[in-house]
Amino acid sequence: MGLRLLPREEKFFDLFCEQAEAAIEAAQLLVDLTNNFTDIDNKVIAVNKIEHQADVTAHTIAEKLNLTFITPLDQEDIHDLATALDDIVDYIDATVERMVLYKIKQPTDDIAKLAEILLRAAKETSIAVSQLATFKKKPRAIKQSWIEIHRIENEGDTASRAAIAHLFENATDAIEIIKWKEIYEHVETAIDKCEDVAKILEQIVLKNS
Amino acid sequence: MGLRLLPREEKFFDLFCEQAEAAIEAAQLLVDLTNNFTDIDNKVIAVNKIEHQADVTAHTIAEKLNLTFITPLDQEDIHDLATALDDIVDYIDATVERMVLYKIKQPTDDIAKLAEILLRAAKETSIAVSQLATFKKKPRAIKQSWIEIHRIENEGDTASRAAIAHLFENATDAIEIIKWKEIYEHVETAIDKCEDVAKILEQIVLKNS
Amino acid sequence: MGLRLLPREEKFFDLFCEQAEAAIEAAQLLVDLTNNFTDIDNKVIAVNKIEHQADVTAHTIAEKLNLTFITPLDQEDIHDLATALDDIVDYIDATVERMVLYKIKQPTDDIAKLAEILLRAAKETSIAVSQLATFKKKPRAIKQSWIEIHRIENEGDTASRAAIAHLFENATDAIEIIKWKEIYEHVETAIDKCEDVAKILEQIVLKNS
Repeated sequence: MGLRLLPREEKFFDLFCEQAEAAIEAAQLLVDLTNNFTDIDNKVIAVNKIEHQADVTAHTIAEKLNLTFITPLDQEDIHDLATALDDIVDYIDATVERMVLYKIKQPTDDIAKLAEILLRAAKETSIAVSQLATFKKKPRAIKQSWIEIHRIENEGDTASRAAIAHLFENATDAIEIIKWKEIYEHVETAIDKCEDVAKILEQIVLKNS
Repeated sequence: MGLRLLPREEKFFDLFCEQAEAAIEAAQLLVDLTNNFTDIDNKVIAVNKIEHQADVTAHTIAEKLNLTFITPLDQEDIHDLATALDDIVDYIDATVERMVLYKIKQPTDDIAKLAEILLRAAKETSIAVSQLATFKKKPRAIKQSWIEIHRIENEGDTASRAAIAHLFENATDAIEIIKWKEIYEHVETAIDKCEDVAKILEQIVLKNS
Repeated sequence: MGLRLLPREEKFFDLFCEQAEAAIEAAQLLVDLTNNFTDIDNKVIAVNKIEHQADVTAHTIAEKLNLTFITPLDQEDIHDLATALDDIVDYIDATVERMVLYKIKQPTDDIAKLAEILLRAAKETSIAVSQLATFKKKPRAIKQSWIEIHRIENEGDTASRAAIAHLFENATDAIEIIKWKEIYEHVETAIDKCEDVAKILEQIVLKNS
């Protein structure tokens, strides 16, 4: 029995890692786009593809969840974790979509900074998620990761507030403010979703300690 | 025992169908309003009434849920389904409320198109919900419905993106952009809620297959 | 055993009351700020401190929830209640943060009115929460409280709609509209969160009656 259950359990951990990897890839593309605003269409298509693939992964998790009676974690926690990881990619996709839709001419320094913070948050999220399978052996490693994610999220908060302040200080064009405010808020939400992942991991570890 | 439980079970299905019917009626009124922008006050009052009645239905479901120990579905799923169905009506109500509040002079072609897509989504949602009671006998019918809802939601996404694009292309008045952007996003959210219903139905069917 | 569990149970009720008290304090500071727009920095720092302390309380509840196997309420309800109470403070904090970020020169009459309604909602929420520990003995008292919260939320809805209407009637400056619309919506959301608390309390009472 143990042998039959083990692969199922590991499958969930593998799928979470896939989702976190997708978040890193999408965040990397956003960084590329904001640092080097060329070849935009291809970069956006690449993000769209990652988002589509991540949807498939999330759907696979949902299906497995309903078929697996004994899971290593609470069903609710698996569901919440998969949703939060998927949301990171969704908000990155929405960010690049809006940049195209709003016919952005040139990225601001603030969007480049926010994208770079998001990439770091996604990388640390991936580290945290990869430690979920072994947290009972190495409880300190995962804890360090989620503390670091909270720290990065705070950095994101400060950068996002500064970005909004710059917008209202410099822009006299309300339409520009509407566009950039939404773009900044999408990136901020993507970073928030990394923190949501950290919180869910913390819950899981607490319940299983 | 079976006889005593059956009516209770069917009651939930009936109440979900009532909620879905309310969504169709509200969506139909939004279509009427966007196609024929006259007699606005009466149409808005009619939507308000539907929203109020739908609240009562949602409340009835919540009460029954707490009193019914054995339900045909997971308590969580019943709660999520009732909430998503109620949200459709809430967002339609918020849409017409905003049109009045913002003293809209003339509906755009885009709002008429979005309303029409929403109406189709609501109708298909109602079909899907009505098949919940019998999905064990006819598993393919409900699946076809939720695939169709996903397709309509995609159509809504494209229409919504086009509407926003038109807004920024044509409008030079930022205040107009603020108004219409919010109205379009409310309709898009109402359509998204139809897709949420489809996803919850999919979960319920998966769990009970 | 009963003796060991009792203190744990009461601890949750105490922590909810602490959260509700924090909401009142934060709402009181927002009222002060909107009535008397001086000494702004100190008032904002005071709200930030309350928000930070409320975060600690919410975290304590989450930790206790995972360590307590037998709780007086459903784990899900405790979690939802703690989250909704925390959200009230979060949205008040976000409101004052935005007022500073947007370099608001003078509060409007509408923000003062909304803040005053929020304070009443927070006070009634605190009364309702304090009755949770004894609702079996006094079922009518808590019910009266949540009916009153619903009434205040309706009042908030009307005031919020009027505030938005005034904004679009009077302002010709779209940038002012963007700023105030967001500030008003934050206060409205804080009031909505009081109503969410009332709904969760209603669920808890229904389940335990």
